[in-house]
Amino acid sequence: MDKRVMIDCDPGHDDAMAILLAASNVSNLSIEAITTVAGNVGVDKNTINALRVCELAGLDDTLVAKGADRPLVRDSLEAAHVHGDSGLDGTSLPESPVKQADGAHAVDILIDKLMASEGDISIAAIGPLTNIALAMRKKPEIIPRINEITMMGGGTYGNRTPAAEFNIYADAEAAKVVFESGVPMTMFGLDVTHQVLATDERMKQLAAINTPEAAAVTDMLRFYSGAYKEKFSGAALHDPCPVAYLIEPAMFQLEKVRADVEIKGEFTYGMTVIDAEGQSSRTPNVQFAREIDSNRFWQLFLQALSEMR
Amino acid sequence: MDKRVMIDCDPGHDDAMAILLAASNVSNLSIEAITTVAGNVGVDKNTINALRVCELAGLDDTLVAKGADRPLVRDSLEAAHVHGDSGLDGTSLPESPVKQADGAHAVDILIDKLMASEGDISIAAIGPLTNIALAMRKKPEIIPRINEITMMGGGTYGNRTPAAEFNIYADAEAAKVVFESGVPMTMFGLDVTHQVLATDERMKQLAAINTPEAAAVTDMLRFYSGAYKEKFSGAALHDPCPVAYLIEPAMFQLEKVRADVEIKGEFTYGMTVIDAEGQSSRTPNVQFAREIDSNRFWQLFLQALSEMR
Amino acid sequence: MDKRVMIDCDPGHDDAMAILLAASNVSNLSIEAITTVAGNVGVDKNTINALRVCELAGLDDTLVAKGADRPLVRDSLEAAHVHGDSGLDGTSLPESPVKQADGAHAVDILIDKLMASEGDISIAAIGPLTNIALAMRKKPEIIPRINEITMMGGGTYGNRTPAAEFNIYADAEAAKVVFESGVPMTMFGLDVTHQVLATDERMKQLAAINTPEAAAVTDMLRFYSGAYKEKFSGAALHDPCPVAYLIEPAMFQLEKVRADVEIKGEFTYGMTVIDAEGQSSRTPNVQFAREIDSNRFWQLFLQALSEMR
Amino acid sequence: MDKRVMIDCDPGHDDAMAILLAASNVSNLSIEAITTVAGNVGVDKNTINALRVCELAGLDDTLVAKGADRPLVRDSLEAAHVHGDSGLDGTSLPESPVKQADGAHAVDILIDKLMASEGDISIAAIGPLTNIALAMRKKPEIIPRINEITMMGGGTYGNRTPAAEFNIYADAEAAKVVFESGVPMTMFGLDVTHQVLATDERMKQLAAINTPEAAAVTDMLRFYSGAYKEKFSGAALHDPCPVAYLIEPAMFQLEKVRADVEIKGEFTYGMTVIDAEGQSSRTPNVQFAREIDSNRFWQLFLQALSEMR
Repeated sequence: MDKRVMIDCDPGHDDAMAILLAASNVSNLSIEAITTVAGNVGVDKNTINALRVCELAGLDDTLVAKGADRPLVRDSLEAAHVHGDSGLDGTSLPESPVKQADGAHAVDILIDKLMASEGDISIAAIGPLTNIALAMRKKPEIIPRINEITMMGGGTYGNRTPAAEFNIYADAEAAKVVFESGVPMTMFGLDVTHQVLATDERMKQLAAINTPEAAAVTDMLRFYSGAYKEKFSGAALHDPCPVAYLIEPAMFQLEKVRADVEIKGEFTYGMTVIDAEGQSSRTPNVQFAREIDSNRFWQLFLQALSEMR
Repeated sequence: MDKRVMIDCDPGHDDAMAILLAASNVSNLSIEAITTVAGNVGVDKNTINALRVCELAGLDDTLVAKGADRPLVRDSLEAAHVHGDSGLDGTSLPESPVKQADGAHAVDILIDKLMASEGDISIAAIGPLTNIALAMRKKPEIIPRINEITMMGGGTYGNRTPAAEFNIYADAEAAKVVFESGVPMTMFGLDVTHQVLATDERMKQLAAINTPEAAAVTDMLRFYSGAYKEKFSGAALHDPCPVAYLIEPAMFQLEKVRADVEIKGEFTYGMTVIDAEGQSSRTPNVQFAREIDSNRFWQLFLQALSEMR
Repeated sequence: MDKRVMIDCDPGHDDAMAILLAASNVSNLSIEAITTVAGNVGVDKNTINALRVCELAGLDDTLVAKGADRPLVRDSLEAAHVHGDSGLDGTSLPESPVKQADGAHAVDILIDKLMASEGDISIAAIGPLTNIALAMRKKPEIIPRINEITMMGGGTYGNRTPAAEFNIYADAEAAKVVFESGVPMTMFGLDVTHQVLATDERMKQLAAINTPEAAAVTDMLRFYSGAYKEKFSGAALHDPCPVAYLIEPAMFQLEKVRADVEIKGEFTYGMTVIDAEGQSSRTPNVQFAREIDSNRFWQLFLQALSEMR
Repeated sequence: MDKRVMIDCDPGHDDAMAILLAASNVSNLSIEAITTVAGNVGVDKNTINALRVCELAGLDDTLVAKGADRPLVRDSLEAAHVHGDSGLDGTSLPESPVKQADGAHAVDILIDKLMASEGDISIAAIGPLTNIALAMRKKPEIIPRINEITMMGGGTYGNRTPAAEFNIYADAEAAKVVFESGVPMTMFGLDVTHQVLATDERMKQLAAINTPEAAAVTDMLRFYSGAYKEKFSGAALHDPCPVAYLIEPAMFQLEKVRADVEIKGEFTYGMTVIDAEGQSSRTPNVQFAREIDSNRFWQLFLQALSEMR
């Protein structure tokens, strides 16, 4: 039977790829809902983008619900320009999707689905953690009903500040709530997501696939690699990692550690402090993904884009 | 026409008195809803207490909705014992109310009522500000629709720590969200609520009133004055202040000031920093109640308990 | 026998008055040294001002030593303009004193005098606490040899920010070191120093005294009252308070409390958190001056300026 | 001509090795002074250890001065047991050295030497930075006279907490003062010092050298490797790195970066935040050592221990 998952996201190019991977034939996932949250761009744009990606992926019946438009406590981040004004620049997807978002709020969708479940739904959290924190605070009873949170965010270094990764920095208070919730978590930070690069060779393999999904991803990676060129040999595929883990966990090397979210620091706000050596004597609360078999990932990803459902 | 108000509370003895005042014949208020939040005791007990007080006050048709059971980010406070185990010890109210809470969540009641209003509903916020912050974050569109928040909390000194008052300390991150929301606020901190004391003489006046409500309040004040005896000449009636203000604002001297909520300090977490002199050059965001005509308040309060609707 | 005292200061009009009071015939003090520290103006100007005041006060043989020019950790404050560019504007004292500062550093003077003493020297600390903190850290052995620190700074509210008084705000880390040192301290914060105002009537009494010292103080108070006019009925004589206490402690009502210096807060950096109710359960570390008999103070001060040694 | 250097240290086994390296024939260094500071053990023990190492190294005329016994602001750390009770356990050096420390304070030695210099003295700072911060605050005129500070401390991860290395964590406020002083700094953090390991093979090479110094170092490394065995293939030679750099800078790969010291964080106090990508737009203030040619280092170190002066 398929694993049930809700995807909480802020698409975003790599969010789009994560959704495509989840929706593909290689996936063993049943997408129960896609919920959106403000991230690089506002939640209205992110919701439209989610709908556009659903149309591309053939997720006609998948529930999409709009969520929080600002962080739990802190001010909104100014938009970074990694993903362009629309949040999904560079693609030729139709600008105005026919598919509509559900009328309910993402927070309530998360709560209702979890409360109606038998504790078998996981959440792939690939944007700031605002919706999930709000849901946990509005309805703490969901906490023991979340099967697992597989999360893209944090790491032992940052990309938004020297110490903080974007998703955590964008709402560190929400991240603190989620990290301290007691829910089983697997964390895909920059340490591992920067191992999954769309190198020139991989881009060629992708271009050879003759599907609309592969074409769209090619466009996305071309646009989005701009932010990576100087430092990396290609764009990093952050958000597909937690989805790939749900499909094929053996692809990753994991380590159970304590991870704490810093919300007081002057230079370290939004940092995930990873205690791999047990120096803090605090109870481990996350599985930290150290390594990925990135060739295996790419193989799976190419297959997904070749054989969409 | 009556002013429309929602009371967000954690009853609590003085919460109960605030509800009775709002429900009385002297009041020009229409209570649109009573929402509950975790405070000194958990939200389940607070909700039962709100229902018990509604039964006493004849608020048979008033919607009561249960809200957040824990603060926005921080850990729950351990219960202080000001109000006893039940949160309303010392009264002879029936323990199990017949009246039931609404099935909807307090946060959604706040949102729905505000969204359906013409911007004419005020909120009397007399507990920790968790529900209101959650509502603002879930649905930012409510912010311009709140007529006013009249709030019990904070002050230039504390009662839970040397710097912080209980309601703010219990959820300082939520308070920060509310104080920075831009909603018109009038703040009744300890500076003014400690001016409203149930002195021996006033207790005698109260005992002379022959109504069940007056009898209940007498019981409450007798129990609750224990926490005040050493320092004050009677129990302080904190929570009725923001309700009294809605009924008769002229009773108070107000000052427009900047008030900021400290969430980083080691010794000052949960402090409301009142900038009465404009030293910070920050835009004023609250009306700060400096003085109350406490004799006039007491007269109104006695009248309320004599002539319930 | 006279009480031995070192005055650590940043003159400063009210510092000058404190020195005059200490040097007068009403004083039972032997001034062992005057040490200077950066405050409203830099330490070079403050040192020249200390020498100018010594010449006025007849302190020809009193050792004056220059100290720290910047706070222990934080950046220097920009000069506030309470005291004018020179730090002592408005007086007709000679600009260039003949008297010279000692070659030794204030920190070493503090250390050497204390180490050579029998534990009978007090420090009147009426500027930022940088020198004293540096001395305590360079030579911890002085700590048990300080008889008492009588300090102007802090209070339950601020004058530099809504929460922080200037002397503490200017070097809160140093203040923390001193407050936690275990040395007996008596603290004269704004609560008490704002009770000592140079009202119009008192200014007339002062003007009637026919001494050069009284004339100089008249000039100082006229200049310096500018900063107080809007809010108070005259300039506040902050710095003379800890000296007056050494001369006649009965003038003050004191309370033993815990006082902690906040160095982490966003809105409260440099606040002295006064725990008058014992809420923190932390060990009391200061005598906090609540009240002064300001008429008695003024009487003493006028007498001092009439009868300099 | 030899480079002039003062070594500020808390010996400590690797401090001892750093001093031996500096004192050896391979060194081009003139040791102007050795100053001590509290670190793993107190400053009295560290001073005795410095004298013991001087006797071993033949530094009979080298000035040794005792410095600060506690951190600038924070409380002293409890002693970690890496170096044993004496701070130099496991060696057979005479316990009570004949050589005596200078009577002057380390802070004054640092100040006097620098003020008397032509700006040509560097400081190898291999303990907590308390002495150097105190000297900078007592006498800011030394700042432009320091040729360079080569410092062991910090890194992109910690050894005392998950985020903080011992030397910085032990006095983060002092580190902040030094890092923000504007003095040219080269920083040898854990990233590079963990590349210099006393592996079994290297230990054999060391044992083959027939000098008292090599024998002593062998004892030290045997004792001290205990703390490293689980995680590394040998003890890390932290403190010799900044000395090796002064002798042969080409051994290191350096990068000019911004490094900020976190003093506010809950989980990150004492972290050095390394901004290698320029994300903070703050002015670079240190040369960060990324890589060392550890074989070349070991060769130099063995040669040093073979041919002491």
